[in-house]
Amino acid sequence: MLETTIAAIGPLDEPAMAAARDLQGRLTKPAGSLGALEDLSVRLAGLAGSCPPPLPEPAAVAIFAGDHGVHAQGVTPWPQEVTAQMIANFLAGGAVVNAFARQAGASVTVVDVGVATPLPVDPAAGPDAPAGAPGGVDGKAARAGSRLVAANVRRGTRDMTMVAALTRDEARAAVETGIRIAGELIDAGAGILLTGDMGIGNTTPAAALIAVFTGADAAEVTGRGTGVDDETYRRKVGVVRSALDRQRPDPADPLGVLAAVGGLEHAALAGLILGATARRVPVLLDGVIAAAAALAAAALAPDAVGAMVAGHRSAEPGATAALRHLRLDPLIDLGLRLGEGTGALLALPVVTGAVRVLHEVATFDSAGVSEK
Amino acid sequence: MLETTIAAIGPLDEPAMAAARDLQGRLTKPAGSLGALEDLSVRLAGLAGSCPPPLPEPAAVAIFAGDHGVHAQGVTPWPQEVTAQMIANFLAGGAVVNAFARQAGASVTVVDVGVATPLPVDPAAGPDAPAGAPGGVDGKAARAGSRLVAANVRRGTRDMTMVAALTRDEARAAVETGIRIAGELIDAGAGILLTGDMGIGNTTPAAALIAVFTGADAAEVTGRGTGVDDETYRRKVGVVRSALDRQRPDPADPLGVLAAVGGLEHAALAGLILGATARRVPVLLDGVIAAAAALAAAALAPDAVGAMVAGHRSAEPGATAALRHLRLDPLIDLGLRLGEGTGALLALPVVTGAVRVLHEVATFDSAGVSEK
Repeated sequence: MLETTIAAIGPLDEPAMAAARDLQGRLTKPAGSLGALEDLSVRLAGLAGSCPPPLPEPAAVAIFAGDHGVHAQGVTPWPQEVTAQMIANFLAGGAVVNAFARQAGASVTVVDVGVATPLPVDPAAGPDAPAGAPGGVDGKAARAGSRLVAANVRRGTRDMTMVAALTRDEARAAVETGIRIAGELIDAGAGILLTGDMGIGNTTPAAALIAVFTGADAAEVTGRGTGVDDETYRRKVGVVRSALDRQRPDPADPLGVLAAVGGLEHAALAGLILGATARRVPVLLDGVIAAAAALAAAALAPDAVGAMVAGHRSAEPGATAALRHLRLDPLIDLGLRLGEGTGALLALPVVTGAVRVLHEVATFDSAGVSEK
Repeated sequence: MLETTIAAIGPLDEPAMAAARDLQGRLTKPAGSLGALEDLSVRLAGLAGSCPPPLPEPAAVAIFAGDHGVHAQGVTPWPQEVTAQMIANFLAGGAVVNAFARQAGASVTVVDVGVATPLPVDPAAGPDAPAGAPGGVDGKAARAGSRLVAANVRRGTRDMTMVAALTRDEARAAVETGIRIAGELIDAGAGILLTGDMGIGNTTPAAALIAVFTGADAAEVTGRGTGVDDETYRRKVGVVRSALDRQRPDPADPLGVLAAVGGLEHAALAGLILGATARRVPVLLDGVIAAAAALAAAALAPDAVGAMVAGHRSAEPGATAALRHLRLDPLIDLGLRLGEGTGALLALPVVTGAVRVLHEVATFDSAGVSEK
């Protein structure tokens, strides 16, 4: 499935991009006055292969949740159980991602791809249920648009400072879970996918992945995650460095990198990106976990960058390093460091607005407005 | 009306801000992880005097339109008639502001406060019609939520390089028009006002206003507006400098400054801001025209800054100088330089999201999530 997905990924369509550039020049506004939105609209036309490209709606957030063996190294003050507790919060509609998704009219699908502790909820949908169907544990969850997909590959990764976090087969299974979820969400009608994540400790493997794919030093790409103190931060940098020293992952072997120092949610998000790109549907990236996954996806299929839109600039330094490597400029920069998909959801109206302009704005000709 | 409005403007409510800070700390997310949104939510609680503050909806965009005697100095390649033509475009729903307003569910009210040329439409609503009522010239306008308010103070300003752009009474009349429109929109239910503007040549008086209120040199705060060439740009800087040299406006006399080098839409926007602030309703600022008006409003009533939210960072250098002077950080920075209210509309979901968090997100306690 991974190989056929990668084979289906191609470059942006040049004629559609040229048509979008031409249309932007005829709309009733000074040329270039919509700044980054104009470039974005052109790229999305190239992805869709049509001008105007379809409006990116409805939007679907996919939150991949996993735990991390490296948690044992004291990289965060939060207990591991919080991953499962926050899943319950997502399903009950009480998290920030739910509030933002309700506002944006987006659905939220939570995928247990690697949670270590028992989930405090009964999954309403098994691994074979279509991802687009509404679900959840109670009426409130349905109202919030949250549902749970059980697709646990293993109950948390191994400690990457000791051994490879995942076997190669486990990494592949997680990537293919992401591809499958992308397909199901798109089959159910989604016009854009938003990356979400939950996993106590997951900024540590994200930093390791970013260091490998960008070539940056551990200290440059490791951040304070949920806001750790100086001592924990120093330990965290040391943990990333020691995992990289022990595993020596080869950036030319992206699946091997994900297995060595990745997380199950990072691998699944890489798959989500590949799956959406193969279907030529845009993917709106959230923060540093998504940025790490995006590097893995781009290493597997360089043209996947064409489908990526950077939602926001996370406060994590690794996110900026990763986006620079991918040559992506984030749409929003507000110091967010929450994850869950929250930054992507805040950026969604900008993406939709960029495309809407091509659909709805009058031309100088049609509106009878004089040109300069 | 101006004096009673200014007298009604007071500082932010400290107990409501303290309550919002406390609530942010108990919600199911790491403390501070929503970055600038947390500070914004605290400030809006202080403005409303309650925690949580009301959701800022529905949103109403007020586009003030005017023409400029300084157009005769060749500061822009666009003909003056485009101001009136674009009003027709707004009413027909064909402009970018209409597309973004439809997406955001915002109403659009166009106010002719100073257009020089005949409007190519029959105003659907006279100056005494309530501003909240739907209107427009045909069904399409009604669908787009656009209506026209006829409130022309004079048919364009005088050329500020020759004489004062407005008499003091005209400046006051425009400010009071803005106050009146704010009151009507709020009476009709608006929970937030967004500034919009249309006026060929209006970045030139905006630069002059910003130079006076910030003390910056003309060259630092004059930009390329719709994208003028080098020769026009140099002429534009010279025009701003020569108007300031001739009029020597006193920043301690804000109404005098608006009269000397302002525009009718700038003055009316200053009034809109004051009117909203007096009602403790937030005002989301668009670009450089709004920033110039915000400086005038803050000079008239320093506490008015408490109600201002900077929607985006315009590509115009004067906007950045003005926001720095007001100590406001913009929510979005995408190189926009269109005006109309477009940048404010793109930022609106961020403002709504910031407040929504206080309404809808579960606390650690209520969701049964462990703390660190």
